[in-house]
Amino acid sequence: MKVVFIGSGNLATRLAIELYKYSFSIIQVYSRTLENAKRLADKVGSIPVDNISEIDSTADLYIFSVKDSALNDILDQMPHSNGMWVHTAGSLSWDVFSGYNENVGVVYPFQTFSKDREVTFENIPLFIESNNQKNTAYLKDIFSQISSKVYELSSEKRKQLHLTGVFACNFVNHLYAISYDILAAENIPFDSILPLIDETASKVHQMSPKEAQTGPAVRFDKNIIDYHLSLISDSRLKEIYKLMSEDIYQTNKK
Amino acid sequence: MKVVFIGSGNLATRLAIELYKYSFSIIQVYSRTLENAKRLADKVGSIPVDNISEIDSTADLYIFSVKDSALNDILDQMPHSNGMWVHTAGSLSWDVFSGYNENVGVVYPFQTFSKDREVTFENIPLFIESNNQKNTAYLKDIFSQISSKVYELSSEKRKQLHLTGVFACNFVNHLYAISYDILAAENIPFDSILPLIDETASKVHQMSPKEAQTGPAVRFDKNIIDYHLSLISDSRLKEIYKLMSEDIYQTNKK
Repeated sequence: MKVVFIGSGNLATRLAIELYKYSFSIIQVYSRTLENAKRLADKVGSIPVDNISEIDSTADLYIFSVKDSALNDILDQMPHSNGMWVHTAGSLSWDVFSGYNENVGVVYPFQTFSKDREVTFENIPLFIESNNQKNTAYLKDIFSQISSKVYELSSEKRKQLHLTGVFACNFVNHLYAISYDILAAENIPFDSILPLIDETASKVHQMSPKEAQTGPAVRFDKNIIDYHLSLISDSRLKEIYKLMSEDIYQTNKK
Repeated sequence: MKVVFIGSGNLATRLAIELYKYSFSIIQVYSRTLENAKRLADKVGSIPVDNISEIDSTADLYIFSVKDSALNDILDQMPHSNGMWVHTAGSLSWDVFSGYNENVGVVYPFQTFSKDREVTFENIPLFIESNNQKNTAYLKDIFSQISSKVYELSSEKRKQLHLTGVFACNFVNHLYAISYDILAAENIPFDSILPLIDETASKVHQMSPKEAQTGPAVRFDKNIIDYHLSLISDSRLKEIYKLMSEDIYQTNKK
């Protein structure tokens, strides 16, 4: 099976490496920056291109993994092809491809990817969708080779799923970053907080997040909340602390 | 070694069970609610009391693990004792004990505890502090029996550490809770997000949170950010999304 990657970012990099591992032939990697295309292409025995008109029209599958705002420009310049087109975006429907190709779909791996961090796809949920049942079955076949968790999900639900990813990954990671800076200012090693971070993640495997909640906000310990606010000088951080505490309290009162 | 627990909440419960496992004698558990005292006392072969005047004055160690705002009232009624008094609070200095006892200190386990969830103390950092070197050495001796990570830390630094715990545990868990509710509304099993939650926590063992960041805010994908805001109807949640995205963007621009 011949695959072309359009995009060479975090997700494209890890997905291409995984497919390559399972003997898919990644015939080309496109990026508007040749250097970026080359970096990924070198890892998966592929050819880098930075010009859309050079994209090979004989592939079986084209995987678009670019910033949503860049997609339309690329589609307008894509050569015609009989291969299937899929994108990996959480918040776009498959119908962004309407009028360009008759076999189109979505493969959304619900995970956070960094170029240089290995991940095992085996347990990553992959949410697929396409424009007809035949294509859905086709995508299921292909991606079941790399993950045991391939599910069909509508665009409407996938958008909400994507939103939860922002809360539970991007915003969570940013709270780690805030903690990192506070600890660094006190010369306390970041390692000290890792058991707490790990246990917080582990707990919600066993109980619901609501049941797992602890700390000053859920017990409405106003002394501590006010004291913590007095320790924070950055106004946006202060606002985040206030809003989150208020939301924890209101949620758990119910 | 004879220990009395004043308090029977999440932290007191797990710490008492752990000390009991290591053959400490938990002679009494105090709570203002006898039922709560009894629930913990039964687990650690101890005697429950709900009247402070009944507290045994012959113990070696008294561990105060109550809401900060309740502590002063209890201290005023505590019988005199030669044993050492310690509390487990992140944001209080040992000097809350000044005038009550001459051997006082703090043992702050940096972890999130729930009564019914087992945790291994072996890797939990325990931050200790006391009013003199002899007492610090004494606390180090005692608590090194249950954890390999006993560190001395000043009250000033411990307060900042506590603040990071609120960000990296309580607020993180609340973001899980927000995601939980959104997924439930879409009938998507919460299990689907666990690999993402786990990987987000794992990543920061290998790289800094700033390096680990992904998603629309860090790449300033305004289309997605605006689209997500349009999906959120709750005004406080909308504000949290806005503030966090803005803070991620500003942090990573630096």
